[in-house]
Amino acid sequence: MADEKALTPRSEDFSAWYNGIVQRAELAGYAPVRGSMVIRPHGYAIWELMQSALDGMFKDTGHQNAYFPLFIPQSFLEKEAEHVEGFAPETAVVTHGGGKELEEPLVVRPTSEAIIWPIMANWIQSYRDLPMLINQWANIVRWEKRTRPFLRTLEFLWQEGHTAHATDAEAEAESLLILDIYRRFMEEWMAMPPITGVKEEWDKFAGAVRTYACEAMMQDNWALQAGTTHNLGQNFARAFDVQYQTESGGHDYVWSTSWGVSTRLVGGLVMTHSDDSGLVVPPKIAPIQVVIVPIYKSDDQRSAVLEAASRLYERLKGAVRVKLDDRDTVNPGAKYYEWEAKGVPLRVEIGPKDLEKQQVMVVRRVTPEGEQRKVPVADAEIEARLVELLDQNQTHLLEAALKRREENSYRGIGDYEEFKRIMGSTAGFIYTGHCRSEACEQRVKDDTKATIRIIPQEEFRSDGFPEKCLCGEPAKHEVFWARAY
Amino acid sequence: MADEKALTPRSEDFSAWYNGIVQRAELAGYAPVRGSMVIRPHGYAIWELMQSALDGMFKDTGHQNAYFPLFIPQSFLEKEAEHVEGFAPETAVVTHGGGKELEEPLVVRPTSEAIIWPIMANWIQSYRDLPMLINQWANIVRWEKRTRPFLRTLEFLWQEGHTAHATDAEAEAESLLILDIYRRFMEEWMAMPPITGVKEEWDKFAGAVRTYACEAMMQDNWALQAGTTHNLGQNFARAFDVQYQTESGGHDYVWSTSWGVSTRLVGGLVMTHSDDSGLVVPPKIAPIQVVIVPIYKSDDQRSAVLEAASRLYERLKGAVRVKLDDRDTVNPGAKYYEWEAKGVPLRVEIGPKDLEKQQVMVVRRVTPEGEQRKVPVADAEIEARLVELLDQNQTHLLEAALKRREENSYRGIGDYEEFKRIMGSTAGFIYTGHCRSEACEQRVKDDTKATIRIIPQEEFRSDGFPEKCLCGEPAKHEVFWARAY
Repeated sequence: MADEKALTPRSEDFSAWYNGIVQRAELAGYAPVRGSMVIRPHGYAIWELMQSALDGMFKDTGHQNAYFPLFIPQSFLEKEAEHVEGFAPETAVVTHGGGKELEEPLVVRPTSEAIIWPIMANWIQSYRDLPMLINQWANIVRWEKRTRPFLRTLEFLWQEGHTAHATDAEAEAESLLILDIYRRFMEEWMAMPPITGVKEEWDKFAGAVRTYACEAMMQDNWALQAGTTHNLGQNFARAFDVQYQTESGGHDYVWSTSWGVSTRLVGGLVMTHSDDSGLVVPPKIAPIQVVIVPIYKSDDQRSAVLEAASRLYERLKGAVRVKLDDRDTVNPGAKYYEWEAKGVPLRVEIGPKDLEKQQVMVVRRVTPEGEQRKVPVADAEIEARLVELLDQNQTHLLEAALKRREENSYRGIGDYEEFKRIMGSTAGFIYTGHCRSEACEQRVKDDTKATIRIIPQEEFRSDGFPEKCLCGEPAKHEVFWARAY
Repeated sequence: MADEKALTPRSEDFSAWYNGIVQRAELAGYAPVRGSMVIRPHGYAIWELMQSALDGMFKDTGHQNAYFPLFIPQSFLEKEAEHVEGFAPETAVVTHGGGKELEEPLVVRPTSEAIIWPIMANWIQSYRDLPMLINQWANIVRWEKRTRPFLRTLEFLWQEGHTAHATDAEAEAESLLILDIYRRFMEEWMAMPPITGVKEEWDKFAGAVRTYACEAMMQDNWALQAGTTHNLGQNFARAFDVQYQTESGGHDYVWSTSWGVSTRLVGGLVMTHSDDSGLVVPPKIAPIQVVIVPIYKSDDQRSAVLEAASRLYERLKGAVRVKLDDRDTVNPGAKYYEWEAKGVPLRVEIGPKDLEKQQVMVVRRVTPEGEQRKVPVADAEIEARLVELLDQNQTHLLEAALKRREENSYRGIGDYEEFKRIMGSTAGFIYTGHCRSEACEQRVKDDTKATIRIIPQEEFRSDGFPEKCLCGEPAKHEVFWARAY
């Protein structure tokens, strides 16, 4: 049953609003273990559509899926020094199995490099086996202190790619290829356009040479790190002795990458599009794109309307993901409320008057400015018009997100007082020059809670940047700052 | 790289042969944690096709996917007395998280009833919420003593359905519906036809009222329990207080079921069809249905043949799952060997002579008796002929498995000496009457290593059964016996 309480408006308390949407749209619920969640059918169906799109993009670029073990012997995690330092504090540890204490504790994977490389080392003999392009869909456990559904949970679902290459250049190209796949997926499927770029040295994945990230703007103007790719250089190959025979007969360590996106994307989806009526989902990842709601009062009306609604359902189900809500125990108003809250892009109302006029009434979940929310559509045109409205909706949501991002981005900011004023009021993405000192970032963070998100890739850079960093030292490159989830 | 050693023949050592296939076909490998395995890309691709087919069948019958937590508080597992008795000895236990000892240890799910029901209890308020039909795809950990890849591993992948109903009759119907889906999937997709039936009282799932199972015959005439469904009655609803408001305004506990199949199916696939040359995969779940191998000697031949092979690949890829093996570093003979070992149903050879004759040579992985292994096919007919040969192959493998099952089934056996003679020589499925005593089964097991698999469903029963059990007591119903994995 849907929760009947009103949602807290976004403007009042963004965080309460977010939690309200997650509950109201039945995306997830709390589970008995602190910080855990259960992904409910509606949330999971969105994740399945995301998985399917991403999986297709990975396979189209030559990647294969596999499945590696959940448990990592503790000594393996310790083989890469930076890696263990980064992850050991967050691990869940199995100490007993089959009623006995284990000789060596097992770590529940917080990421899989430390179990994948000792195994893949056996699969790679010669240059002929490279590149090796592997991905896995799996659950991950990180003992997070502060958790929120989808955004940060003790356990989450993700995909993690792990690839091995013969040269550094190929590993770098792979990191950038996947970054581009992530960006395209977020834009084209989620209508959540990210800024892409590289992380500062001190903000890399534990064990990486270089970390790239996608940073998307949420409706509170905070940033969400929505996907990362890592060029691992030969760090893990050395730690786990992953060598191959080169074409010339010598031996070398492979160059590797890893990369991932997770169920965190579902949280990003909520915070990008949803409103005070509930969830908004772009049609391409909407489990239900069109819901048909029959409207009747008398029994006579009931049978005629239900028959027409059924016929319509049969007609539509090859063209769109459609649901016929023919429940007798729920009135139409309650159905509208429920499907709006769940973010179904289009509702088709069909009642006795519509039958007479040989039409249906199509109602949009999101209406572009200047357009009608309710659109009568003649019977003969229904499929074509629904497909068209869904396409428009997908485009509109991306345009709206891009517009909002531009309106809340500030470029060429050199004055720290102005920076603090913006960050302290509306927040936003603020582009500045930076001196490349970690201490400087820390000071800004202490003052404003904002951090450097990334050094943007070329297409996202400003035309030049201030000569001086916020701290007054000479700026070495452009970065953008935001408060971040 | 493929392992170049010859496989141990089935007839010599079935178990060594099985392990050889798993390695040679690159289905799975051993992992650093005892009893764990890694599912390699070829094995995982087969599992993905199995998942996709089953997931479609579940969704077509109204089931929705969700995702529940990996960790179960130990006290939850203890709420259903039989359940904890059955599973506690096999659990892996997390005692530390985030660097601290936990107040309550967490069990890594050995099955999810004990975490799903306390959560689903919140989703079910009234009869309007029923039936609730949920499935999840997940990893499972059971601390098994003796493990073998796919058949019994410390961690495995599976789906587990969990449903709630308003009546016992509906829960029973659900258990039987899913049993039928499992049977159809195993027959129609895997060409691995199981016998279905109900387990004896003492052989039920821990906490169930009734357990149904699919039992398939492997090539050594042993049985593989390949899928189970459980009518849980109100046992778990009472243990976790899952109540709903009935239509008449009262309150009642729901009636529930659970059911699952796992990556064990991949092991069943190997033992049903494969031969001394490697894996055999029915076309419907073959990741690669057709492999094209270009054959050339001179450079001139090379470019002409590769161009024709590429054109063919482009032509075929909409019709079948096809791979073009255009590696220059591997000779055709080695390619044949590798793709045979991996069970690709059809190989298309294309060389200079074929170009002249405007044909290709199609070679079957498995040839029905009396037919040609190599079939020349004219260019114009390639798509149609390949599709036809794949269909034939799917049918042939099912027929061969059914024939083998019938040849190794023995009905109406009443004499214990005869029983022991069969079980001790060829083994097989032996149908007898049974007195319904657990002690009687134990004695037969001690003598012959065979166990009662199930009381067959009507369609698998014999025309009557001996009046007396193997032990001499009056028989109460028919069962069949086998040695089992």
